[in-house]
Order: sequence, then C-alpha cells, then structure tokens
Amino acid sequence: MEPVQWPHAAQCAVQFTFDFDAETNWISRDPKNLKHPGTLSQGTYGAKVGVPKVLELLREEGLKATFFVPGWVAEHRTERVEQILAAGHEVGHHGYLHKWVDPDCPEEELEEMERGLEALQSKVGVRPVGYRSPAGETSPNIIRLLVERGFLYDSSLMDDINPYRHVLPDGRCGPVELPWHWSLDDAPFMLSSIKVHRPIFTNDHIFEIWAEEFREIYRWGGLFTLVMHPQAIGRPSRLALLRRFIAYTRTFPNVWYANAQEVAQAWLDQKGPGDVAPQAISPFLV
Amino acid sequence: MEPVQWPHAAQCAVQFTFDFDAETNWISRDPKNLKHPGTLSQGTYGAKVGVPKVLELLREEGLKATFFVPGWVAEHRTERVEQILAAGHEVGHHGYLHKWVDPDCPEEELEEMERGLEALQSKVGVRPVGYRSPAGETSPNIIRLLVERGFLYDSSLMDDINPYRHVLPDGRCGPVELPWHWSLDDAPFMLSSIKVHRPIFTNDHIFEIWAEEFREIYRWGGLFTLVMHPQAIGRPSRLALLRRFIAYTRTFPNVWYANAQEVAQAWLDQKGPGDVAPQAISPFLV
Amino acid sequence: MEPVQWPHAAQCAVQFTFDFDAETNWISRDPKNLKHPGTLSQGTYGAKVGVPKVLELLREEGLKATFFVPGWVAEHRTERVEQILAAGHEVGHHGYLHKWVDPDCPEEELEEMERGLEALQSKVGVRPVGYRSPAGETSPNIIRLLVERGFLYDSSLMDDINPYRHVLPDGRCGPVELPWHWSLDDAPFMLSSIKVHRPIFTNDHIFEIWAEEFREIYRWGGLFTLVMHPQAIGRPSRLALLRRFIAYTRTFPNVWYANAQEVAQAWLDQKGPGDVAPQAISPFLV
Amino acid sequence: MEPVQWPHAAQCAVQFTFDFDAETNWISRDPKNLKHPGTLSQGTYGAKVGVPKVLELLREEGLKATFFVPGWVAEHRTERVEQILAAGHEVGHHGYLHKWVDPDCPEEELEEMERGLEALQSKVGVRPVGYRSPAGETSPNIIRLLVERGFLYDSSLMDDINPYRHVLPDGRCGPVELPWHWSLDDAPFMLSSIKVHRPIFTNDHIFEIWAEEFREIYRWGGLFTLVMHPQAIGRPSRLALLRRFIAYTRTFPNVWYANAQEVAQAWLDQKGPGDVAPQAISPFLV
Repeated sequence: MEPVQWPHAAQCAVQFTFDFDAETNWISRDPKNLKHPGTLSQGTYGAKVGVPKVLELLREEGLKATFFVPGWVAEHRTERVEQILAAGHEVGHHGYLHKWVDPDCPEEELEEMERGLEALQSKVGVRPVGYRSPAGETSPNIIRLLVERGFLYDSSLMDDINPYRHVLPDGRCGPVELPWHWSLDDAPFMLSSIKVHRPIFTNDHIFEIWAEEFREIYRWGGLFTLVMHPQAIGRPSRLALLRRFIAYTRTFPNVWYANAQEVAQAWLDQKGPGDVAPQAISPFLV
Repeated sequence: MEPVQWPHAAQCAVQFTFDFDAETNWISRDPKNLKHPGTLSQGTYGAKVGVPKVLELLREEGLKATFFVPGWVAEHRTERVEQILAAGHEVGHHGYLHKWVDPDCPEEELEEMERGLEALQSKVGVRPVGYRSPAGETSPNIIRLLVERGFLYDSSLMDDINPYRHVLPDGRCGPVELPWHWSLDDAPFMLSSIKVHRPIFTNDHIFEIWAEEFREIYRWGGLFTLVMHPQAIGRPSRLALLRRFIAYTRTFPNVWYANAQEVAQAWLDQKGPGDVAPQAISPFLV
Repeated sequence: MEPVQWPHAAQCAVQFTFDFDAETNWISRDPKNLKHPGTLSQGTYGAKVGVPKVLELLREEGLKATFFVPGWVAEHRTERVEQILAAGHEVGHHGYLHKWVDPDCPEEELEEMERGLEALQSKVGVRPVGYRSPAGETSPNIIRLLVERGFLYDSSLMDDINPYRHVLPDGRCGPVELPWHWSLDDAPFMLSSIKVHRPIFTNDHIFEIWAEEFREIYRWGGLFTLVMHPQAIGRPSRLALLRRFIAYTRTFPNVWYANAQEVAQAWLDQKGPGDVAPQAISPFLV
Repeated sequence: MEPVQWPHAAQCAVQFTFDFDAETNWISRDPKNLKHPGTLSQGTYGAKVGVPKVLELLREEGLKATFFVPGWVAEHRTERVEQILAAGHEVGHHGYLHKWVDPDCPEEELEEMERGLEALQSKVGVRPVGYRSPAGETSPNIIRLLVERGFLYDSSLMDDINPYRHVLPDGRCGPVELPWHWSLDDAPFMLSSIKVHRPIFTNDHIFEIWAEEFREIYRWGGLFTLVMHPQAIGRPSRLALLRRFIAYTRTFPNVWYANAQEVAQAWLDQKGPGDVAPQAISPFLV
C-alpha cells in the first residue's frame, strides 16, 4: 500500500466528522420513541448543548469539520445547522430520517435520498457534495444514486485506510470513498441506552484506541477519519477527550487537517483523471 | 451556555440521588421474577443492607440526599423509608411498581402515578415534590400529569446539563427539569444479571468517568446529578467508591451540595418568575 | 450490621467455592449443544484440565474448598469428583443437569433435586449438606425442598454479606444462607461463547474488583464467598489470578479460610439455637 | 498434565493462525448482508488491506503461519490466497461459506466440506491437511468427515491446552486436535458490528490477556494457539499489537514457532504410533 500524496507534502490527513443525528438516531431505530421523551432527550442534548459546544471547541482549535445532517434535523434544528454553516464547516447528506432502509426497498432509499437533499436545500441552502449512510448500512442502489447525483464523495464503508474511487458494474465512475471504522467512532464507547446496553468506557480507554490507530495511520501515510456524534462527544468530559486527542495529533509534525470535501478533492487532484483506477467494491453484491 | 447562579455564589451544584427500587427493579422487568428469589434477592440487598449502609455513609459525610421510592417499596419496606426520612433526606416519587408503562396506555400511567402518591402519603406521610421516571422511560402524558399535580421538579431527561423548565404545548408551565445521564448512573457499570449481561467494571473505571464528568461540569458551572441504586452502590466496595468520589469533589472549592428539591427551588429563585423562559422539550413528541 | 463472631476470633471468613458444571453448563442452556462439540468442549476443559489444576493449586496453597457438582457430572466425571473428595474438599448439590427450572414446574424441581442426590450418593457416596442453585435461579419450592431434606446451608442468594437463616412461611426453620454476588464470580468476566458475547476481562480488572470487595468485607467482618468454575478459572492465566488473589488476602491478618459447611456450622454455633432470628426472605414471593 | 516433548527441546510451541474469512464472516451470519456493502466492507478490508499487511509483518518477523481459508474466499480472493502460499505459509480448510451448519443437516455439512476442498484444490492447488470449523461450531459428523478424509489435524475445540488425538466411537483414530480458546482470539476484543455490539478493547487490554496466558502456557510446556482474522488484526493499530506481542514472546528462551501442520506432526512424532492414547472427546455427544 503506497502512501497517498497529500497536499503540502503532509504525512497524513485528518478529518473530524460529526453525524448530527439529534432525535433521528432514536426515532429511526424505533418510531415508538417519538412517544418516549426520555430516550429522545439523549438526541435532543446533541442539538441543545452538543453542537454549540462542539462549535466552540472547533473555533478555539482553529479546525474546520464536516457535519453529516439528516434532512429531518435540517427541518427541526434549522438554527443549529445555520450556525454550523456560519462557522465555516461543511454540511453533508445523512439521509432524511437516519433510516436503515431495507435494501429490497429501492423506492424508500430513493425517498430518503431525495427528501434529504430537498430539506438541506430548502432549509439551509446547501447542495451537499458528500454522503454518509446511517451506521454504515448502505446498499448497491444507494451507491448508484450517489453516482447519478454526482456526489464527490461517500464516507460509509470500512474496506480501506486510504480513499479510493467507486465504479459501478456498468463502468461509470462514482464518488471517492473516505473510509471509516467502528473503532474511530465515539458511539461504540459511550452511546448507551436502556435497550442497547453498550458498556460506557473511560476517556483513557478511548484515547488509547484512537491514539494508537492515529499513530499507525500516520506512519502509513493514510487518512484518519474520526466519526463523532454531538449527543455523545458533546458531553462535558467527552469534549475534554476530544481536546486531548487533538493536542496529541498536534505533537506529530506535518499533519494535514481538512474537512471531507477537501480530502476527497485533494485525493482526486493528486491522482489526476488518468491515474484513477476505480475499484468495484464488493463485486459479490447482488 | 451561561453558568447558573447557584446559592452562596457556588461554582457548581452536586446532588446525590438514590433510586430505592428494591425488588421492583426486577419485578417490573418481568413479573415472573416474583417466583425467582435468586434474581429478586439482588433487590432485597438494597433494602436489607444497601440503604442502612448508604444512610451511615451520608451521615458520616454530612450530606443530605434524595431517594426516589416506588410506592410498592414504601408499602413493603416502610421501615427503611422511615429511616431515610428520619435522617433528613428527601423522598421523591418513582412510580408505583417501577414500571416502564407503554405510552399508549395513559390509564396505566395515571394508575402508577396515583398509586405511588397514595402509598407515599399513607405509609410514610410524604407528599413528594419531585418525580423520577424508571430508567428515564417517561412520556408526554406523564409530564402532563406532573404539571397538573404541581410537582416542583422532574428528574428523568438527559437533554441538558443545567436545569430548565418544562412547558406544555398549551402554554402551561411545568416542573423544573433536573437532568441526568447514563454515564453518571451506577447501574450501567455494575448491575448485572443472568438475563442482562452487563459487564462489571472496576471502581477505577467508574471513578474516572464520574470524576472527569464532574471536573468539566464544575468548570461549566452546571448541575452534577449522580444517580445510584442501594442494591448497586450499596455493595461494600462500591460504597468505598462513593466515599472516594465525594472526597474528590471536596478538593474543588465552592461546591454546593444539595438535595433535588433545594436545587430545583434555588434554580427557580435565581431565575425569578419573570426570567423563566420555559422550554418545550421534544416538540416532535406525538 | 454487626460483625459475625467467627471462629478463632477471625476478622472475616473466606470460602473458595467451585461450581463444577463441566458440559452441563452448556447442555442446560440448550440441549442442542449435545450436538455441538465445540461449545461443549469449553465445559470438557473444566473436567480434563480445570479440576486437576485447581486441585493442585489448592493443595499447594493448603486450602480446603467446596465444589458444587451437578448429578450428571457425578455420573459422567466420577473419577474427577472422587479426586476432589480424596483431596479433602467438600462436595455440594448443584442440581442434576444444571437446569434453570421454570418455577411453575415443581415436579421438575423435585426431579432435579432427587436425581442430583441420588447420583452423588450412588456414584461418589456423598450425602451433601449444602446446595447451590445454578446461576442463582432458585424458587420458593426449591427452598422448601431444602428445608424438608434437612440441608445445613444454601448458597444461592445475593441479599446479604453475612449468613442468615431461612424460615418458611409456615414457621419451619431452614438452612443457613451463605450469600454470593455476581461481582465475586469468575464467569461474568471470562466465560464467553458464540451466543453469549460476554466481554473478556484482564486479570488486573478482575483482581481489582475482587480485592476491593474483599478489603471492605474484611473491614465489615463479613463472609467473602468466591464463586468459580473450573472451566473458567482453570485456564492457565486465570489460575495465576487466583494465586495472586489468595496471596493478597493473606496480607490481611486474622482471616479464617473455611469450606462452606464449616462456615455454615460456625455461624449456627456462634448464634446458638436460641439466638437465631430466622429471616423470611422475599416475603412477596408467590 | 505432563509437558509435551516439543522439537528442539523447546519449552513451548507457538502457532500464529489466521482465519481469512473476508466477506464470508458476514454472509454466513446473514445472507442478506450480500446487499449490505457497509457491513460487508469490514470483511473486504481483510482481503484488500489486512492480508497484505499481515504477510508483510510475518515476513519482517521471519515467521511462518497457518491461514484457514473458506472455499468461497479461495474462489473470490484467489490472488490473495496465492500470495499467502507464495510466502510459504500453510493454507487450511475453513468450510466453504464459513457456515455454522445445523448438526441435524449432515448433507449440508458434507457439502461445506466437499465444496471447500474442491475450491482450494481447483483455485490454488492445495489439498489441506488441517481443518478449523467456523467459530468452533462443529459436530460429531464433521469430525467423522475429517477422519474419513485423512486430515492430519483439527483446530476447533477448547478442551485442552496440549494437542491430543481424536478417536471415533467405532475406534478409528482421527486427526490430532490443536485446541484454541476465545481469550486467544482477536475477534471478541475488536470485531464489532451494528448488530453485534461487542465492546472494542485497547491494545493494552488484549496484550495483558494474551501475555498472561502465554506466560503460563509457557510454564506448563503447552501449545499456544493465537487465532486472528485479517479484518480485525489487520487494522493499523492492531498490527502494532501483534508485533508487540511477538516481541514479548521472544523475551522467553526456547520457544518453538511453527505452523499448525508442523505442530501436529511433531506431536505425532513425539508420541510415536504406539504411544498415542486417543481420546474420545465428549462421549455424551449424540
């Protein structure tokens, strides 16, 4: 695996991404949660407290990030999404209601895609260039929808450290993939609920996992993608973890901090149109 | 987020709360547990050993706390609730049988509310001013019931660090909300059973999570709510954890230790009737 | 809670107990496991390797322990149970097939009790004086069966630190209860399977939990019951944990190491027939 | 338990084994995952990145390992399996689609066995001498199939530290068993998914568990079997864990590093045809 040629001759790229799911994280798992204000309030925290505090932290740290926002959140938390944009961050597509659509229901996939685009456009004037599927539950059809809509990048898969380019079975080139991984997500370590008893881990535990993964990806010259949720990382002590982690990455020389759009574009630019050997991921997909 | 103006110009408020569920914690999940003395005995421990040892600790530490007590526990563990009251602690409402009522059954919600009130009144002479729903599983109807019964505060939601005031869709003002969070609860770290395999964590693990959250909430000037269960925190080593944690908070100057009623009242007093901008939580609730 | 008056004016009592479930741990959960040698082999390890290595450790440490043995194991692993007895350890009743019997099937409870007694008697000549229910899943009827069969003690419940005496609703006195707790069991920390994904914890993690609980129970003057399984604690590194833990307890002066029968008898002797105030546990049991 | 007489008078044997499941790990659990590229991409990582990086590490460390490869993977990831073979590693049988076959469907078991053999033969020219069942879910019939096909060894069970020899109920001698254990597998510590919420542990946590188990097995003179998955151990930080662990084992004198075939053969040679007392495992199997 050859290192990517990052801008500024950087040794590695770091992108901080936030899935601003708010209440959709809970409604999408079980619509009945609409009648459960206790469960729902975990998502509300992300909108009320999490996003403002994350924005404050990013401003103080001088970092630009990417927020993936479901259409429903753009409609119901419009002011928060406007603040995100006003602070200079990127807003990407994250479905409409954060649904894990059955891949046998392409019409529902289409609806989530279109309603999400519509809400972002009409509410906050954004035409997103990037997409992240909820919890990585995507489908061949969704990837086709992204190609047809000209998305620059997708950030839903876990099959690489470096970006690569999608290609459809019919040969059409698609978006750049910016891979993630569960171990670089905040939710598995702290997003517990009465139905999903995920153990709650310490900052030291999470820091060790993120820091060791960063150290090695740095050494490989790859892309480090951190996936966070304002309702999780926005808790007081978890913001302190994020600050500590950012400080750690700054002890490494030559790191390029960028948002997802910049990473995808830089990767495309570096490769050059002729160099790009697109990869058909999971050719066994039916 | 502006810091709250706490009494005595304190930097932050700390409330120690105990959900004295005893056997109801197990009966409410599965009534068949009434025929399982092994499972049930975990709750019995809270009544037999946990509460007396917690009361001893609070007396030695000179702290006043709030105990949320299901009506069934007031009926079957009357002496223990009397001891709690005799020691000067507050007793709040915690349902009748610790049920997670289906929000589509308002008549059952009403019954849990009324039977709980009745039991506390008739058995230990308490008219509670505060309510905490079992495991945060509340509903819009329950919040309405609280408003109509003039409760001073609710402590069931997770959408903030600071207190705020509820308001009904029709504009009626409701109780002050005193938020909590799973990471500041003892159960996720130690309350395991043969059916719910929650991993059991060390005191160091739990201390780190509570201490880091406390440090940051202190810095923000917010409210720190610890949610404990005598059947969990009442184990010998867990009481040692609680002592250690209390000692840690005492290394911070200017902390206001109060029970839930005092916190809610202080927050109301500070705001003044005219200042209070009540928040309609989760306006999407149906 | 007053400290128990232990023999030799000891400050606390320690009993090491082993549930020698072998394959029954897996067959009882799902009889289909009889066709799954992979799953079953975890239990076989307890018989092939675990018990001999545990016996070796106990001999080297000069400790006498109690092994609770299902009747099925006495029948199929007779030689191992004979070795346990030959080494001077106590053998207690642990059901016949380690079943969690539905409390609505008293005839099945009776059968587990009788077949267990019969197997222990006919195979290894033991009439046990103690009983531990599988995974603490007992019932009022089982406790009644123990009373009627004159068992000296039961070790199935979690509602105390100290021993106490059972009494039936009709006033008949029953066995002494020797309580245990999940946090002092090895299984929750290491007994994982493909169906039950219990996380696997480090020796340091388990040592901290056991050691802090021991330190406090010692201070209280209570009974410390460790519950282990040869198929779990018998792994090479886990035996090292047990040795380390034993060494830790030996840094405390005045600890009384005893098997369960000795503990129960000492508690009865200390109380004197007149002193014993038997407790009706869980009077809400139906 | 007497120590094994390892070649070169070694104190213990160490085998590094890799289950190269790729996408079959996810398809076998739920065929619908064929329509879930997000879930599937976790397995793809093993093929795209994991295996090449593992091969690089093994080359740099000068170690020969065993890769258990499902037939499906040999068909769809042929080039990767060829690279494994070209680097001098052993390839073993791992079923066809990594299925956990119902032991009541012997014809399906036969099909998995035969299709796996066929794929390995036709795609990469391998006639494997060893077999490992997916997740240890094997059956008496599968063990019979191994005997009839003359397999040298099986590595699916957990009932010992040392190798032993299988024997069928009818007295026929079977393969040598090379036992493993969940605590010496990478998956329980890091292979999480949206449906199976396994907590993700730190390198320190995993290192401690592996290192303590190694230290004791070394002392016992047994066989240390590490079970890894390229999609798990192949993550950047996890490869660093593996390097750290290898370095740790090298601080012990007199360790024999071998692949599974060499271990099985050495154990047979050491015993001599006359010495071998084959064991009927789990004689209760139906």
